[in-house]
Amino acid sequence: MSAKVIKGAPIAEEIRAELKAEIDGLKEKGFTPKLSVVLVGDDPGSVWYARNKVTTGEKMGALVEVHELATDTPEADVVALVKKLNADDDVHGILVELPLPGHINKANVMNAILPAKDVDGVTAEQRGYVLGDMESMALVPATPLACIELIQRAGVDIKGKKVTVIGRGDTVGRPLAMLLLSRGRDATVTVCHSRTADLAAECRAAEILIAAAGAGADHLVKKDDVKPGAIVIDAAINEKPDGSITGDVDPAAEEVAGVITPVPGGVGSLTTTIIVGNTVKALKLQKGL
Amino acid sequence: MSAKVIKGAPIAEEIRAELKAEIDGLKEKGFTPKLSVVLVGDDPGSVWYARNKVTTGEKMGALVEVHELATDTPEADVVALVKKLNADDDVHGILVELPLPGHINKANVMNAILPAKDVDGVTAEQRGYVLGDMESMALVPATPLACIELIQRAGVDIKGKKVTVIGRGDTVGRPLAMLLLSRGRDATVTVCHSRTADLAAECRAAEILIAAAGAGADHLVKKDDVKPGAIVIDAAINEKPDGSITGDVDPAAEEVAGVITPVPGGVGSLTTTIIVGNTVKALKLQKGL
Repeated sequence: MSAKVIKGAPIAEEIRAELKAEIDGLKEKGFTPKLSVVLVGDDPGSVWYARNKVTTGEKMGALVEVHELATDTPEADVVALVKKLNADDDVHGILVELPLPGHINKANVMNAILPAKDVDGVTAEQRGYVLGDMESMALVPATPLACIELIQRAGVDIKGKKVTVIGRGDTVGRPLAMLLLSRGRDATVTVCHSRTADLAAECRAAEILIAAAGAGADHLVKKDDVKPGAIVIDAAINEKPDGSITGDVDPAAEEVAGVITPVPGGVGSLTTTIIVGNTVKALKLQKGL
Repeated sequence: MSAKVIKGAPIAEEIRAELKAEIDGLKEKGFTPKLSVVLVGDDPGSVWYARNKVTTGEKMGALVEVHELATDTPEADVVALVKKLNADDDVHGILVELPLPGHINKANVMNAILPAKDVDGVTAEQRGYVLGDMESMALVPATPLACIELIQRAGVDIKGKKVTVIGRGDTVGRPLAMLLLSRGRDATVTVCHSRTADLAAECRAAEILIAAAGAGADHLVKKDDVKPGAIVIDAAINEKPDGSITGDVDPAAEEVAGVITPVPGGVGSLTTTIIVGNTVKALKLQKGL
């Protein structure tokens, strides 16, 4: 048996088509969603992600502007820019590209973002809506939401399924567990991590296995760790020294899984689109639409 | 075999002794922790809980005042009182007793509480700290924290343990899962609920089983659902029509479990003490102590 491979690109395109229609409707009412990206320094990954948001946003008719600041910009100036964007009524979403240069305290910058414009879901308030099962008013972080979209749009019913999430980070594993548990999705969720006693057993028990262990965990999940016919979602992006990208799941798992997402080309293909989607949602919540 | 029964009262007393010493130290520096309880109407449970906070607080030398408002108090007046307490520098913690009368929108009142004084952990910001694994700056809701205190002070090591939580509510199950997963505790956590396909199997797999299904789920967990020697924490308070209190776990589970908490007299015995503890923590965070 060989798994059905679910690629991110066509699903991202489907979401973008829906968002474009929604943005067209908003423009008729006089609103154009605008995302402001703050890019400090010239980390190649961050530069690429920032530009990608501009091109992705433009495809849907949203405005995306990138504020490029020099690597040695003082923290206070970055915070001041964020506050200026908070106060700008024409800006509906704010995203600060990470990593920030070493002299800048990440928390100080993130906490400066007005929660209502926090389209990356990094503020305590947005995280609180996720914990509190108040997703309709939340701006959910992109990677966990991308996992949910991939699963649901691939036609997989999550209800009552046994789901194992590998990874307990604050940007993927923890919020993803909350989303899966929410009323309507109704998954039974197990969260594993580096201290889990028998990770392979937890993986093999899963009808849906989502890997987001991250940094350095490439190919952590072997073929034998996958339950035959399981849905396997790989949410990791591990950069190897040669610059290539791998996931947390050994591609050989394809021989056992029922459905699997590739890395690259899976979950990661949706995140930029979801950030624009969050900008649209932020605008609607801000304007009471 | 019969389980070791862990009662809440002596553990609550141990915590109160520690808090009293801490409060004595704060008083020497000129700070007396003060909790303001807002009680709307005369729900007998709420009246009891409010009074209990006064006596518990006094034992430790904290100030606890109860603002009693008539059942028909307009929502705006309740919100106005909360805002007055927000602005009062001598008040370090605010707690609104639930349930509120039907004409009052709970969310409007809860969201009015200044997060820094939210000792019941009901605001989005406090929930966000819990989701984000930022417990040192969080005011954690009382029941999940009581579960953690009971387990740890009973000498049970959570690290790497397989924990099953029954219940996905926003006040117990969801935050508790986040606390158990946190770095340092390192549990592998499964969250179950009414839509879980095989609840008994999930329970039997658990080295630590925490039941918080709540309302109407009395004695949901049977003796046969418990792994021999497991730690069983019952965080539920189910009120029966005759006014008696039961938990989610059938007391017969005592024959199988290694350690078990009773209901009443277990987790519930800690919550008021923890609210006073949160008031002390809130004061320290507010004053940078």
